[in-house]
Amino acid sequence: MQQVLDKWHSMMASGSSDGLYALLAENCVFWSPVVHTPQEGRDKCFAYLSAAQQVFSSDFRYVREIVQGDHAVLEFTCTMDDTIINGVDMITVLDGQIVDFKVMIRPLQAVNKVHEKMMAMLEAMRASQP
Amino acid sequence: MQQVLDKWHSMMASGSSDGLYALLAENCVFWSPVVHTPQEGRDKCFAYLSAAQQVFSSDFRYVREIVQGDHAVLEFTCTMDDTIINGVDMITVLDGQIVDFKVMIRPLQAVNKVHEKMMAMLEAMRASQP
Repeated sequence: MQQVLDKWHSMMASGSSDGLYALLAENCVFWSPVVHTPQEGRDKCFAYLSAAQQVFSSDFRYVREIVQGDHAVLEFTCTMDDTIINGVDMITVLDGQIVDFKVMIRPLQAVNKVHEKMMAMLEAMRASQP
Repeated sequence: MQQVLDKWHSMMASGSSDGLYALLAENCVFWSPVVHTPQEGRDKCFAYLSAAQQVFSSDFRYVREIVQGDHAVLEFTCTMDDTIINGVDMITVLDGQIVDFKVMIRPLQAVNKVHEKMMAMLEAMRASQP
């Protein structure tokens, strides 16, 4: 777990998604803070997580880390267009890879703001694909 | 921490808020999933947590528990009017009492539903006060 978290933090600090794909298990599941239905598979998880990385601003920082066994909860704060975002990345690791990644955000205004920004980013990423 | 969690779980299982007040530190802070501003002090925390206990339905259950030191994250699921709610109670304990209680909820639809129900419950509680 600690190795995965170290890789995750160094990736987030660098602002690059290099190494992210290798960190995700083939059957990884991503649970969005906005939509109920999980995104299944490494490709979808990678798309969401790399989009999120671009959407979150330069003042993004982790403020609390709670780790037990194969589960980690990383609490973060940041701002988006003056909206204060507070959330958690809930990460489950198996055999040195992330198998489950769930995000929750508060307050309500922040969920709406992240929704708006993520929709725009995923749309832009789709449009830029050949 | 484990003693506090045991008390919390037995209270949630009984559906009663007996013992809740004693479990909260005088300077306890409650962070709502809906509103940014924290609710400070034991009385406000008690009001929110006991209202929440009444709002959440009989199918409320905890599905994951991540504990490290003085911090615990309890993940739950339930339904409200057919809306699936998934959330976390993030609890910080000091000297055997809860000093910080933060709730986050997903997906967006669930945050809206909890908002609606909590507003109605807090309004009803205020109206019933002498």
